[in-house]
Amino acid sequence: MSEEGTRVSRRKLFGLAGAGVALAGAGAAAGVGIDRMGGGSTAQAAVTTVDFHGEHQAGIVTPTQQNLHFAAFDVTTTDVGELRQLLRTWTSAARRMTAGQEVVPNGAVGGAAEAPPGDTGEALDLPASDLTLTIGFGPSLFDDRFGLASKRPAQLIDLPLFPKDKLDPARTGGDLCIQACANDPQVAVHAVRNLARLGFGVTEVRWSQLGFGRSSSTSREQATPRNLFGFKDGTNNIKSEDTDFLRDEVWAVAGDGQAWMAGGSYLVARRIQMHIETWDREPLEGQEQIIGRTKGSGAPLGQTAEFDDVDLGVRGAGGVPLIADDAHIRLASHQTLKGTRILRRGYNFVDGSDGVGHLEAGLFFLAFNRDTRKQYVPMQQALSSKDAMMEYVQHTGSAHFAVPPGLTPTSSWGDGLFA
Amino acid sequence: MSEEGTRVSRRKLFGLAGAGVALAGAGAAAGVGIDRMGGGSTAQAAVTTVDFHGEHQAGIVTPTQQNLHFAAFDVTTTDVGELRQLLRTWTSAARRMTAGQEVVPNGAVGGAAEAPPGDTGEALDLPASDLTLTIGFGPSLFDDRFGLASKRPAQLIDLPLFPKDKLDPARTGGDLCIQACANDPQVAVHAVRNLARLGFGVTEVRWSQLGFGRSSSTSREQATPRNLFGFKDGTNNIKSEDTDFLRDEVWAVAGDGQAWMAGGSYLVARRIQMHIETWDREPLEGQEQIIGRTKGSGAPLGQTAEFDDVDLGVRGAGGVPLIADDAHIRLASHQTLKGTRILRRGYNFVDGSDGVGHLEAGLFFLAFNRDTRKQYVPMQQALSSKDAMMEYVQHTGSAHFAVPPGLTPTSSWGDGLFA
Ligand code: HEM
Ligand code: HEM
Repeated sequence: MSEEGTRVSRRKLFGLAGAGVALAGAGAAAGVGIDRMGGGSTAQAAVTTVDFHGEHQAGIVTPTQQNLHFAAFDVTTTDVGELRQLLRTWTSAARRMTAGQEVVPNGAVGGAAEAPPGDTGEALDLPASDLTLTIGFGPSLFDDRFGLASKRPAQLIDLPLFPKDKLDPARTGGDLCIQACANDPQVAVHAVRNLARLGFGVTEVRWSQLGFGRSSSTSREQATPRNLFGFKDGTNNIKSEDTDFLRDEVWAVAGDGQAWMAGGSYLVARRIQMHIETWDREPLEGQEQIIGRTKGSGAPLGQTAEFDDVDLGVRGAGGVPLIADDAHIRLASHQTLKGTRILRRGYNFVDGSDGVGHLEAGLFFLAFNRDTRKQYVPMQQALSSKDAMMEYVQHTGSAHFAVPPGLTPTSSWGDGLFA
Repeated sequence: MSEEGTRVSRRKLFGLAGAGVALAGAGAAAGVGIDRMGGGSTAQAAVTTVDFHGEHQAGIVTPTQQNLHFAAFDVTTTDVGELRQLLRTWTSAARRMTAGQEVVPNGAVGGAAEAPPGDTGEALDLPASDLTLTIGFGPSLFDDRFGLASKRPAQLIDLPLFPKDKLDPARTGGDLCIQACANDPQVAVHAVRNLARLGFGVTEVRWSQLGFGRSSSTSREQATPRNLFGFKDGTNNIKSEDTDFLRDEVWAVAGDGQAWMAGGSYLVARRIQMHIETWDREPLEGQEQIIGRTKGSGAPLGQTAEFDDVDLGVRGAGGVPLIADDAHIRLASHQTLKGTRILRRGYNFVDGSDGVGHLEAGLFFLAFNRDTRKQYVPMQQALSSKDAMMEYVQHTGSAHFAVPPGLTPTSSWGDGLFA
């Protein structure tokens, strides 16, 4: 991944890998947002940036950062010119913020005293913290409001209702989305908040979700993090190093139908509530059978190490399959699904309590694929109807977005859409 | 603060200070939770621990960690023996988790395959990350259920309703609370979740709140973080180095009435929603007048540097006070309040969206004081009735807890209460 080059090699240089690592030591900057760092005192932490530009948007194969703030927006204007202009404004703001800079130069405190500041200020003194900002366009954006119907990719379907879905309309859909990932939650929140602010009069926040702990790793450089069922999550994910899978299963090409989406991808977001207190009463063996992997090492059942190949055919005493027919990794596997894979990039969440005595916890599932009709949908159909895990989870939110390709230093998020 | 010794000196050693700093480099452990770190691959990050034992509970003057998970619990049993036992169980679990260990040895994966695991596992491989766990007892715990009425400290009042309060009962009150602070949100969440789990049948989660970015610094070793109004928050806080203020304004003594509370403190929690989109339309000058400080440096109006003394008498052109009569720092100051001070330890939060197009953002205000009647209450009365900031905030949750003193390696959280 060329846009990751600087960062990854810096990681290598320092011999750091895995979860929770922040680079320490001043002067470790690869493109530090110096104009935001005047304070000096916090300059030692996590001063790395991810390049905003490249063939693909950052935030897809970028090694998952620690924190997520995801927001879906409704477009409230009917003036297409305002929408186009906002996408330009958002692009320049995103270009600056991902470089560790304020929304506009001297935005928080340098403007006229009588004017509202151009930046809300809570990320002053904080480094870029690997912030990535990724935009997506929802199916509803292609309705009759903006004349975009002919631009709608066939892949950008209205997702079907899956068995056992219990979707809250207030957590579902959206004309636009912004996925902000960073190694500091305040930096991710600052970015979404400032984009929301710039959208005033043009867009409104429909829903937003914070996440932590990055439930899925997307790079072989990262240790596999754990989700709130306590299992390693992301072992058998498409990784940034899997260039063949990325080409075949993640990146859209012109021949897929809409040339403007070449180099882009399709993002499925699902808010999945996890009944953790029920899960916690399940014996270890039962938990492992539901997943199809060992809890400690993450090894597939029947194997010994995390990254050993899954063998769905392996049998134990009495010829019983070790990986059960309704095990999560069997049903979701490319073997069962005729080669289908997706790139997962979810985050854990806890949103207060559920009102009946427990934490409201779950997985904010994010996945990128090239054709949602052929990849995510059959996978979710299989899981929703057969996965033993369904007893412990509930899908409460859902959205689907076309994620356009990456940018050059002079292009804008809306260019392809409005070309 | 003796319990902070190891940690602070390590910080000094590495020359690291301020927000967002994670110590990097293997072998940097000051009491690493080795039994949870088998994986090895993530062992480089933030491997510091805060001592669970000491004269006072950790998590009060401990330099504020990056992440908060706060939970309030209702006691559902009426059997006082069960409650006492739970407090013992919680204490041993907290002692272990703050040391970076699992709830019970080999809890997540080492038990019998047919038994539910003793630890939920999502913090396996993660270091202690400076986790502190602090318990508090709410006024309602001292009702007639457990025979504790005579143990209720006079300081532990039912908080009055303040002007403009708009409290949600689902975010208010609680028999018990656990404040979990850590430099990794997954570690804080894991701790609260496992305590909630151990409480099954005895307690239920009444409400819980995640926070980030620690809006108030509590140590001179820390750079002052910013709240979601973009201002530095904690400049004029009681710091862990202010031993006289801590003695006079934070720590209870036997002579205060209830000997079992000596070395403890009183915790006020207020969920304060901030109307950030309205705030963001306020000119810089107006924002600074509301607070009474400069946004960039954090200097008091009329002064030049953040830590310059506040001079409430300083006047500008035409003799107008530079720090307005309704400025936040005037109304909250010890000068105006006849010497009253509190120790603030709040966190920023974003809880999705408010349902009408904006982010639901705010400050989860946490403050410790020795006598809430004489400190927090008059301060909040002054702010709720006169603070110019009230136009931009709304108190939506409230709770009050007696926080017992610290522990020895063999004592338990309930000892004083049930002595
Ligand atoms: C709360 C919900 C979920 C949990 C806790 C969960 C957990 C896991 C775990 C522990 C693994 C094994 C480690 C790994 O290879 O990453 C896994 C694998 C996988 N999951 Fe999920 N998952 C969830 C939802 C989903 C959903 C909604 C999908 C897609 C529709 C999905 C697709 C996959 C795939 C493709 C794999 C890899 C299977 C293979 O080995 O080929 N998961 N999941
Ligand atoms: C969203 C709500 C609030 C915000 C955004 C806020 C923000 C601030 C800021 C920016 C300062 C100046 C820097 C500092 O010295 O820390 C400050 C000071 C202070 N605040 Fe607040 N605050 C809030 C609520 C409260 C509440 C509820 C209380 C107590 C009832 C409080 C008590 C104080 C005190 C005691 C000071 C120090 C005043 C002095 O200089 O002596 N604040 N606050």
